[in-house]
Amino acid sequence: MRRQAVIDMGSNSFRLVVYGHEKGSWWALIDEIREPVRVSEGMGRESELKPEPMDRAVRTAAVFAAFCEASGIEEVDAVATSAIREASNRAELLEAISEQTGLEVRVISGEEEARYGWLAMANSTTVDDGYGVEIGGGSAQLVRIRGRQLTDACSLPLGSVRLSEAFLPDEKAPGKARKAVRRHVASQLGAVEWWPTKGGRLVGIGGTIRNLAAAASKQLDSPDMDVQGFVLSREALEELIEALADKPASKRGSIPGIKPDRGDVVLGGTIALATMMDEGGFKAIEVSEAGLREGIFFECLLEDAEPPLFGDVRRESVINLAHRYRTDDVHVGHVAKLSLELFDGLGEAGLHKQGNVERELLWAACELHDIGVAIDYDDHHHHSAYLILNSGLPGYSSREQVLIALVARYHRKGDPDASSLGDLAERGDKGRVRLLSGIIRLAEQLERSRDQSVASVDVSAQNGALILRPKVKSGDAGVPIWAARRSADLLAEAVGRKVEIDA
Amino acid sequence: MRRQAVIDMGSNSFRLVVYGHEKGSWWALIDEIREPVRVSEGMGRESELKPEPMDRAVRTAAVFAAFCEASGIEEVDAVATSAIREASNRAELLEAISEQTGLEVRVISGEEEARYGWLAMANSTTVDDGYGVEIGGGSAQLVRIRGRQLTDACSLPLGSVRLSEAFLPDEKAPGKARKAVRRHVASQLGAVEWWPTKGGRLVGIGGTIRNLAAAASKQLDSPDMDVQGFVLSREALEELIEALADKPASKRGSIPGIKPDRGDVVLGGTIALATMMDEGGFKAIEVSEAGLREGIFFECLLEDAEPPLFGDVRRESVINLAHRYRTDDVHVGHVAKLSLELFDGLGEAGLHKQGNVERELLWAACELHDIGVAIDYDDHHHHSAYLILNSGLPGYSSREQVLIALVARYHRKGDPDASSLGDLAERGDKGRVRLLSGIIRLAEQLERSRDQSVASVDVSAQNGALILRPKVKSGDAGVPIWAARRSADLLAEAVGRKVEIDA
Repeated sequence: MRRQAVIDMGSNSFRLVVYGHEKGSWWALIDEIREPVRVSEGMGRESELKPEPMDRAVRTAAVFAAFCEASGIEEVDAVATSAIREASNRAELLEAISEQTGLEVRVISGEEEARYGWLAMANSTTVDDGYGVEIGGGSAQLVRIRGRQLTDACSLPLGSVRLSEAFLPDEKAPGKARKAVRRHVASQLGAVEWWPTKGGRLVGIGGTIRNLAAAASKQLDSPDMDVQGFVLSREALEELIEALADKPASKRGSIPGIKPDRGDVVLGGTIALATMMDEGGFKAIEVSEAGLREGIFFECLLEDAEPPLFGDVRRESVINLAHRYRTDDVHVGHVAKLSLELFDGLGEAGLHKQGNVERELLWAACELHDIGVAIDYDDHHHHSAYLILNSGLPGYSSREQVLIALVARYHRKGDPDASSLGDLAERGDKGRVRLLSGIIRLAEQLERSRDQSVASVDVSAQNGALILRPKVKSGDAGVPIWAARRSADLLAEAVGRKVEIDA
Repeated sequence: MRRQAVIDMGSNSFRLVVYGHEKGSWWALIDEIREPVRVSEGMGRESELKPEPMDRAVRTAAVFAAFCEASGIEEVDAVATSAIREASNRAELLEAISEQTGLEVRVISGEEEARYGWLAMANSTTVDDGYGVEIGGGSAQLVRIRGRQLTDACSLPLGSVRLSEAFLPDEKAPGKARKAVRRHVASQLGAVEWWPTKGGRLVGIGGTIRNLAAAASKQLDSPDMDVQGFVLSREALEELIEALADKPASKRGSIPGIKPDRGDVVLGGTIALATMMDEGGFKAIEVSEAGLREGIFFECLLEDAEPPLFGDVRRESVINLAHRYRTDDVHVGHVAKLSLELFDGLGEAGLHKQGNVERELLWAACELHDIGVAIDYDDHHHHSAYLILNSGLPGYSSREQVLIALVARYHRKGDPDASSLGDLAERGDKGRVRLLSGIIRLAEQLERSRDQSVASVDVSAQNGALILRPKVKSGDAGVPIWAARRSADLLAEAVGRKVEIDA
């Protein structure tokens, strides 16, 4: 495993993140330290870093450097953004850090920051044509994406700490002050001629947006999971603004989902986001957990690609998760093959009306159905679902991730229960989970001896029954066929037909 | 990783289990197939295996053999117990299996079976002097243990399938029939002169007892977890007998915790267990998830020890779990060292009254606090707790496992909440969790840079304050000391003193 550290010195917090990766197999964030340094505190109009925040910054840099050294991590990329970038006395801070910690900090421009944000968005969502916004502590970055490429980018001084300090310095946030934030943001946006008026797809990244998504998600009846893929509607955002403004600044961090040390500076960025959505005509924003740090990491991970983008984000997410937990590629791949043959055959026989999206969810569940074995063989179907929900699958919506987790959960046993979808459920999801679970359960048994002896399966409907004809590659497939016959009940019930395995 | 398969051909079910292990590091059950073959069905007094059950047995053996071959597992130990052992026509079955699957089945004697059961008990519980019972489908094994050694053993024809078929063949289980089971069991027990009358420690293994523990555990308000270490009281067992007897045999499998395919034969073994406890004067039985199969595996894993026993079961469980999830031994070991120094120092200063048991729980939580990183860095404290509860820690009671999980859960953040202990809670557990969490949280920060720069810590109480003096090994410990100062609140609150870090 190769390890690479990214140190992100933002206006609100400093973070050290460590990524582990094995080329062509998997990558993951494996370690992280976050410090609410708030280096921009009290910078004011003269843009001068104050002694106390500078001292906190140097100490934190020392923690990070000591950590990397003790852990033997040699690849360390330290970057500084808005607050340090704009500070008149930044040289003083950078020198102190270099002297006391050995870290050479790279101060990136607003355009570079926006580009890394785009890399994070394009590699963690399915956005093809659309827009992106990243709200940081000091600045906010806006991007336009066409055919997954970055076509326009800008960085504006609209970070959450900056706006909150300038416009909402008191415990209360009166309507007048909030309107002033909106006016200020709208006026800055006016200069961004490519920002739309008629909406489109919008992706959001950065700590403020992640916190808002977490807060909105906690209002829903839905499983505990990452906010990766969460869709935050403009209405839900408005409710959050009301809830935040109703509380004094020092209490805003008590709203579930909002980090306590971010509470007093979250409102400025929240109003900025709402204004950007209103001006752009966006009704909702898709949230990604990736950000600047992942952008920097992806540039290294995907160094052989130009630009450094995954070919297929959804596919990559699934394979990455499967490899992280070292599943048996050949076995799960064969379960996927048989499952998709069943899915297609059932569709052709008119026994379901599901489309390509469900087909892909089934594929993903097949690839991931055994990852829970990494936790414990006992109840591994439960553990697989736990891992899927807690690791996140970039490119899939929250609902899709829950559906994949449910199908993995029911691949062995149990009567499929889709109620945990809660507010995420769409019409037909109950039947969807039953059908896909019925398919994977049968396919898993057809590959029970894990030797691919059932090479493929033919599907037809005759006289009201569903006939499955396994094609045996070699040797004796008596075992999987016998096992499959005893695991066909769920599928039979899902398609309303008797299932006969003709072999 | 070395892999080893054990095939267990019991009277009720056949199982293939695969263990993975790296010598001196970890072992785990990594795969399993269970088939409710019920080979003993209809054997009757003439002890003859019937054609249909034999056919099921051969087919299942074929599944297992194909599985091992496809998975490339070369070490396969197939053993048969009671039903096959006693069958007049067992040679016919063994030949068919050998011919059709290549498996050479080892038929073990009742004494060998009891010995493997003892190995499972002595390697998964802390029993030093005591008794053990294993209830199988055909036979039941009783053992006496002195100084962890096996001193007496016997196998009696008191398996759950056998008793249920002989005495409780109908849907109803009238009081008269149940009494007949008791009389029969008591009379057989009468011949076991070393079976006690005044109780002592009693350990239980085997599917029937595991199911009973699961059923009793589901009656409690307690976290979802393995039954490893669960204590089943004689009263709870009586309630289960009533609940089972109240239902027709075909519905007994619907009681949560009882496997559906075991429902119709569970009552015989349940009454047998109750009778064994009554005759022996036992008030409760400690349940282990280990059994015959683990006994066989331990004999191989511990081949260098004679007898093949772990030196310290509790310690071994913790280290095994830590190694399974590849934690950083040096870091977690140092957090444990600092935590125990704090624990001891606080005790000497009269700031807590906890003893060696709590000290060991703290040690275990330290060793395991980071295992959740294997799932995901985000929220890894939650994941560590999940892994502890779901993997089981042999040698620790259910309550102790929850306490360890809670301390690992709170090692980074959050206000310790011990309410998930539910019915398992004992007096003082709330304060115990706060104290131990406060200690580990501070120790983790003292080792924040993961370089052991704070080599140890001295504890004293002065003028109502708690004074901690870190001893710095080398280099600059400014970082961990600064971090520790900001993470002392929980400990301060737990001991009711201001904490000063004097460095």
